[in-house]
Amino acid sequence: MPVFKAEQLRQMCLAIFKGAGASEGEAERVVELLVESNLIGHDSHGVIRISGYVTQILSGKMNLGVEVKVVRESATTALVDGGWGLGQVVATQTMNLAIEKARDANVSVISTFNCQHVGRMADYAIMAVEQDMIGFCCVNSRPGVVPFGGMQRMFNQSPLGWAIPAGEEKPFVLDISTSVCAGGKIAVARARGMKLPLGYIIDKNGKPSVDPEDYYRGGAGLPLGGPVGYKGFGLAMVVDITAGLLSGRGASHVGGERGQGVFQMVINIDAFRPIKEFKKEMDELIRAVKGSKTAPGFNEILIPGELERRTKREKQIKGIYLSSRTWDELVQTGKKVNVNLSQYV
Amino acid sequence: MPVFKAEQLRQMCLAIFKGAGASEGEAERVVELLVESNLIGHDSHGVIRISGYVTQILSGKMNLGVEVKVVRESATTALVDGGWGLGQVVATQTMNLAIEKARDANVSVISTFNCQHVGRMADYAIMAVEQDMIGFCCVNSRPGVVPFGGMQRMFNQSPLGWAIPAGEEKPFVLDISTSVCAGGKIAVARARGMKLPLGYIIDKNGKPSVDPEDYYRGGAGLPLGGPVGYKGFGLAMVVDITAGLLSGRGASHVGGERGQGVFQMVINIDAFRPIKEFKKEMDELIRAVKGSKTAPGFNEILIPGELERRTKREKQIKGIYLSSRTWDELVQTGKKVNVNLSQYV
Repeated sequence: MPVFKAEQLRQMCLAIFKGAGASEGEAERVVELLVESNLIGHDSHGVIRISGYVTQILSGKMNLGVEVKVVRESATTALVDGGWGLGQVVATQTMNLAIEKARDANVSVISTFNCQHVGRMADYAIMAVEQDMIGFCCVNSRPGVVPFGGMQRMFNQSPLGWAIPAGEEKPFVLDISTSVCAGGKIAVARARGMKLPLGYIIDKNGKPSVDPEDYYRGGAGLPLGGPVGYKGFGLAMVVDITAGLLSGRGASHVGGERGQGVFQMVINIDAFRPIKEFKKEMDELIRAVKGSKTAPGFNEILIPGELERRTKREKQIKGIYLSSRTWDELVQTGKKVNVNLSQYV
Repeated sequence: MPVFKAEQLRQMCLAIFKGAGASEGEAERVVELLVESNLIGHDSHGVIRISGYVTQILSGKMNLGVEVKVVRESATTALVDGGWGLGQVVATQTMNLAIEKARDANVSVISTFNCQHVGRMADYAIMAVEQDMIGFCCVNSRPGVVPFGGMQRMFNQSPLGWAIPAGEEKPFVLDISTSVCAGGKIAVARARGMKLPLGYIIDKNGKPSVDPEDYYRGGAGLPLGGPVGYKGFGLAMVVDITAGLLSGRGASHVGGERGQGVFQMVINIDAFRPIKEFKKEMDELIRAVKGSKTAPGFNEILIPGELERRTKREKQIKGIYLSSRTWDELVQTGKKVNVNLSQYV
């Protein structure tokens, strides 16, 4: 059960990506975001992904050194071919494009196809916040979730991320799937031999199940909302359309190797209100919500993004725990690209 | 328990609004949307609202004959003063502005303050669909919903609407609150003496309740998601910020007569993909979802918007049922503006 300092893990992962042929800049960006996911407590989007990414690189399914290609463009929009580059590198380039366009035109939407797994939505949304803008990102991908009333996987867990700047308070950072449970959390439960709460998944017969194995044996995830799951289903369909159909990636349920369709949007606050006023009201709202009365059984109300920042402070001190399986995979992945991780531990 | 043909109800309501001083065009638009809500089965947003609207008109809180005033503008954006006009009239004007801007600039966001109740979000989103564009609308308003882990009303039910065109299939039309239950549905349950399912509301002590009265006795609605209600809470906060803070209306929890803050967005599909291709894939997606296997206990999967269209076809034939209370209120409201509804029945 190895525990690593973030910097130590970062150095190891950088070596792996550079060993696989990534440039310094590419390796830096993907490792930054993966280790950040571990630090903030979302191990499902952390270094556990590296084995899969490197396999894709070595098999030629993921390209290195890609510069995204704009295939259709206006002052506010772009349709982008991601060239099957590293998802984090592609989605960073496209979000930068969205920010540039929003700086000139106040609102922008970038739609990207031919893109591998980009990771957490908030990582791109937050880039807009650094420019005093509102950022949004959502993706579609392989199907894992049923429509409300259905038992066949039709939609991806359909994650979406919003990031909105505050003043003295930390920014609002929402990163959620529109299913009850993100796919990665099901994988983590399986890896740890844990049960899931009822209402998260169904088995292959459409019956509720608490066994994460059932998800992989023909089962599926349920849309957000439980008895009103038509709401989560509706939101998932919006994500599938805006990320999948607008980009040309195609809907999640369509087979084949299609990677992720990406939808990114930036709104320039200053087009509507002086940024200082807006930030002041953000601070007031955050404080009012934090200060509002808690329900029985709760000690505190957490603003979206707060739990992640708190976990990060803890893990920066205590280190990042990796399961033996993840560590073994990382070591094996290192070997494939002639990197001996033992020199780092 | 009176039942009315839609046209009959429309004539009565037109007479009331014109009696209250509305122009032909204003009365037409608000009545069109209110009766449509009854037709599609959302009585909470139907003619039940007229008594309140007319009270606001007669007391000077709602203005007639308003032309919205753009106070800040760019090619893609506008900040709009709604002049406390009839919400439906204001939000129709602003959505038209959003569509115009998106036609030129491909993406647009309009943010509106000083606006009364605008009704259903989908009514504005759908206006974009008629122009082969994607429409979105959300509003904030008075608080009714707690943050996840809280027991104090901080957010509005935070409704949002998406409308997306299809080809041969009907458009995708999603209109949901980001709470478990819309405020109007709680009111309808109370009016009919019905219980709510567990998980919809809490009482003034923060305990789960099934009695809609508890909502009005210091209780509150719960955010979408049940055990993962932090997702609905996050979405509600996004709505509060984009509709409330961006427009200057202010957050829902802030007191005073602030009406609704409105956020409307339009995306021109053609900026990304030929509209024909997009619509073809929308048809394919809708058919695939409709045709996917249903779960035990379900006979059918309903695409967002489908139930409403089905209800409308039924009610166009069978008529619109109004509760005695709603009918009495309508008659009394008529009297206030010198309209005798008995001539219409």
